[in-house]
Amino acid sequence: MTTDQLTTWELGLIGLGHVGGGVLRILRDSKQLLASEYGVELVVTAVAELGGGAADPRGLDLDAVLAALEARRPVAELPAIGRPDLTGVALAERFTPHIVLEATPVNVSTGEPALSHVRAALAAGSHVVIANKGPLALAYGELSALARLPSGRLPDQGAGGARPELRFSACVGGALPVINVGRRDLAGCQITKFEGVLNGTSQSILRAMESGLDYREALAQAQARGIAEADPSLDVDGLDAACKLVITANAVLGAGACLSDVAITGIAAVSQADLRAAADSGRRLVPLALAEPDGGSWRLTVAPVQLEADHPLARLTADEMGAVFCAGTVDRLSMASQEPTAVPAAAAMVRDVLDIARTRPLRPSRLDPAGSKPRQQRRARGEAHAHAR
Amino acid sequence: MTTDQLTTWELGLIGLGHVGGGVLRILRDSKQLLASEYGVELVVTAVAELGGGAADPRGLDLDAVLAALEARRPVAELPAIGRPDLTGVALAERFTPHIVLEATPVNVSTGEPALSHVRAALAAGSHVVIANKGPLALAYGELSALARLPSGRLPDQGAGGARPELRFSACVGGALPVINVGRRDLAGCQITKFEGVLNGTSQSILRAMESGLDYREALAQAQARGIAEADPSLDVDGLDAACKLVITANAVLGAGACLSDVAITGIAAVSQADLRAAADSGRRLVPLALAEPDGGSWRLTVAPVQLEADHPLARLTADEMGAVFCAGTVDRLSMASQEPTAVPAAAAMVRDVLDIARTRPLRPSRLDPAGSKPRQQRRARGEAHAHAR
Repeated sequence: MTTDQLTTWELGLIGLGHVGGGVLRILRDSKQLLASEYGVELVVTAVAELGGGAADPRGLDLDAVLAALEARRPVAELPAIGRPDLTGVALAERFTPHIVLEATPVNVSTGEPALSHVRAALAAGSHVVIANKGPLALAYGELSALARLPSGRLPDQGAGGARPELRFSACVGGALPVINVGRRDLAGCQITKFEGVLNGTSQSILRAMESGLDYREALAQAQARGIAEADPSLDVDGLDAACKLVITANAVLGAGACLSDVAITGIAAVSQADLRAAADSGRRLVPLALAEPDGGSWRLTVAPVQLEADHPLARLTADEMGAVFCAGTVDRLSMASQEPTAVPAAAAMVRDVLDIARTRPLRPSRLDPAGSKPRQQRRARGEAHAHAR
Repeated sequence: MTTDQLTTWELGLIGLGHVGGGVLRILRDSKQLLASEYGVELVVTAVAELGGGAADPRGLDLDAVLAALEARRPVAELPAIGRPDLTGVALAERFTPHIVLEATPVNVSTGEPALSHVRAALAAGSHVVIANKGPLALAYGELSALARLPSGRLPDQGAGGARPELRFSACVGGALPVINVGRRDLAGCQITKFEGVLNGTSQSILRAMESGLDYREALAQAQARGIAEADPSLDVDGLDAACKLVITANAVLGAGACLSDVAITGIAAVSQADLRAAADSGRRLVPLALAEPDGGSWRLTVAPVQLEADHPLARLTADEMGAVFCAGTVDRLSMASQEPTAVPAAAAMVRDVLDIARTRPLRPSRLDPAGSKPRQQRRARGEAHAHAR
């Protein structure tokens, strides 16, 4: 493939935290790889966070945006490109990027503001790549009607036709390919069980407790290392894992579940005695998310559970997440991902973008009525940027 | 999706050993699942093995074929459907199924007879799903010119356009999704290392030796359990793992490698002292297939290697295979599959068939000039079958 065949996709990014910043860094650093190995140019035309955004229809200067993020300054204050009034919804409605990336913080009560961002982007005809679990855990059914979103094992084209894509592989364990493996690599299999260690913070805390810390000490250590939030409740209470379980159950198992269907027990009550009891019987206590058949439906549970020591999820290290599918014809397929930072989740968003670019036609940009700019033109633009710096 | 939308794909299967028989069993037992969840009907019109085959353009009676296999009788002797003169090449040329499945025994010197089967099927315009590593390990370049076969990270459509598909996910670790995860789930990542335990027999023998057996005893035990062949050389000499490594390096890393590029050391010289030495330093000796960057290329090695005890491949059980990708933005993504039988490899062939059915249009069958039969017609046929029994 030569560079003449490059296609240019315009991206808009909402949410500039660890994951969003990671996406911008990957896009900045992977230009050459994406061009030579995937034949695409990914141009970020707008970004938005709480307090405003930045935009440049010719493609934002990612170095400038990243410098603002690293200095913890609002991108809205950036000279020339800063847009104090740019909200996430406005980004989706005004700039209509080919693909909107949603990476705002999770809210498991309302799904907001992400849910409004996703609705606005889909209504404008943009594809969406989301790392925020809230909208899918709370409104999977509604979003299925608006976007091409998998429901159970039906082939993708059965689930939406010409609708925009809604990709979410980053939502369940970051780079851990739970959704993709469950849908594609177990195609044709009768899945009989799904098990996951889907919350990295809980896994890290239980493993630290094995080295002698009590729960409070292990939590404090995880907070000091930046693994646990100041308010760790979403993680340690099991809600984060429950969201991921609901999304997996809907996308892979066709469970049609929502968050209230999950029986949830967090890890805050786990004692060292519990961990010792597990070890004494040759087992290990892990923060397990479990989907088991229950009549014609699926029973969904999140709780600390003892597993045999050679179970794939009992073998995980403190900074790994993991998942296991059991199926009639595939005994036990497991996976694990070591994710000490948010970078793998950012990489998962980029893989979703590339899969959309690989499988969907590029629609003409509203900002550029002639459609995708030929490479020649974009090069000239790049030069203009260089002069401006 | 209603049954009215079923599309019917005609399959031809060459090779009726453990994997081929497993495919037939899955197809027989999964009719309902494939119809309701994937909207397809998979009809086997012809099968071939050494010594002849069987064919029925209306769809073979799989119970009859499987009964012959279970009784170790040639399918060519089956009443009405047996075809003593039906070779693999003849199956591909005369029946031109939509998809030819190749599951004959591996030959790593010539790739035959599989290579001829694949060439004949592709020349006739059939898609091919292959479980036999030989042709891809020996003739990846030639086959890339004939079929849509991935080379490195380029998007699939760049690698063949309207050419027939050649799918081979069963070739590298059966149900273990090495190729799919490497290409799709690490899209956009700069892969820095690939490691695999890709030969189940070698893994099983080294783990058995840890319980006190010497190499000969562990091999004999594996042979008694049906895990090792009477002639185990392909497995224990490292050639099987080397074939899988070459295929992964070509399909995922774009290495353009062939079998002679791999430095191979088998496990026959491993002693209990070697295993103890590993254990004494907190490590484990595993039969490792490794691809590492080497200047602008990749260095490929198969050998028993000590790995840290918490390395994902050191944590595998005796009946697991596994693989690990390291990449710049995805620290370490690992997977493992428990495969005590050939059934998971058969399931991998079915997943490849379903992926072709999902992504490629159904061409009109030569046997049925009207194209895919509507569901109504096939139901009538099924009833006729039932009467015939």
